[in-house]
Amino acid sequence: MTDKGLLFVISGPAGTGKGTVVKHLLETGEFFFSVSATTRSPRPGEVHGVNYYFITKEEFEQKIAAGEMLEYAEYVGNYYGTPKSAVEEALAAGKNVILEIETQGALQIREIMPEAVLILILAPDIETLEARLVGRGTESADVVAKRMAQARREVTLINKYDYVVINEDGKSEEAAKDILGIARSEKMRAFRNIGLKKNFI
Amino acid sequence: MTDKGLLFVISGPAGTGKGTVVKHLLETGEFFFSVSATTRSPRPGEVHGVNYYFITKEEFEQKIAAGEMLEYAEYVGNYYGTPKSAVEEALAAGKNVILEIETQGALQIREIMPEAVLILILAPDIETLEARLVGRGTESADVVAKRMAQARREVTLINKYDYVVINEDGKSEEAAKDILGIARSEKMRAFRNIGLKKNFI
Repeated sequence: MTDKGLLFVISGPAGTGKGTVVKHLLETGEFFFSVSATTRSPRPGEVHGVNYYFITKEEFEQKIAAGEMLEYAEYVGNYYGTPKSAVEEALAAGKNVILEIETQGALQIREIMPEAVLILILAPDIETLEARLVGRGTESADVVAKRMAQARREVTLINKYDYVVINEDGKSEEAAKDILGIARSEKMRAFRNIGLKKNFI
Repeated sequence: MTDKGLLFVISGPAGTGKGTVVKHLLETGEFFFSVSATTRSPRPGEVHGVNYYFITKEEFEQKIAAGEMLEYAEYVGNYYGTPKSAVEEALAAGKNVILEIETQGALQIREIMPEAVLILILAPDIETLEARLVGRGTESADVVAKRMAQARREVTLINKYDYVVINEDGKSEEAAKDILGIARSEKMRAFRNIGLKKNFI
């Protein structure tokens, strides 16, 4: 099977619990996490350089201009993006890379790297999603309403993704196992293993 | 995730051990095995209606004419084919179906059922394949030579398949696990789950 590093792009509406799922995946040691940059404020407990690189709008726009962003998007008034160099280095070294990014950015990756694996994490339904967002208590009612509208738009993009994984309440470890299974299967995709022909000449 | 039955088409050159891998898969109880029809003679231990339906050339050609074959191929002087009705009934009942068929037939299935999952089982290399064929001792040197030439042609079709699974010596259970993982991941393929959109209206 191919031993090349694969790029896994994980998206999902706010409240799907994708952060927790990604945390479980990183605990397996099978993935390199690409830390995104953002201009939004840190939430309680979030650490610069671990959860995100928290930078200013001016710094972010300088990086765009310098071509140092693999993808970026504006989302509820803030920039989010992926610094290019770390991803390219990890893939070149044969590591599997996880990007946790918004749908706009994911579709940019699809264009640049068609061999990337795009995974959309969803809650079972819109009611569950809303309950989680409200329960989190970190956003104002206005921001929750914006995120719900955004979630409805994002779900219409299912067909642009390769896989959909449902993160049910309290089952984030199972969702992580689903993605681990996807990662292993993707290594066996025929188009990634054309090189096997040389063993049969 | 989708609860529709999926069609898994498993091919591989003679000597890849695909029969043993399929046997392990059937033991999981997660698959319905579609018994193929053939005009070749049974090998020692093969049972009519279990391994194949062993029928005459005349019977086979009557079924082709009546449109009762989902696919068929001629291979080393014999017909091999898949009776249509059993496959259609199992899929309609939500069962996962395994077809173990030659590459010609697999490519026919791809045309008729583009959503089918095509898996090519290979030995690690041509030397291993030849050693297994000779070791089996059931074919003449002439038939072995024909099968080796056929194997070389089949391997060039990797890019027509969705997945490649390597069956290493003594590791058929691992190859079966690989395919089970593929089956689970395929249930999460986005294009099979577009119906989830209705949960987010």
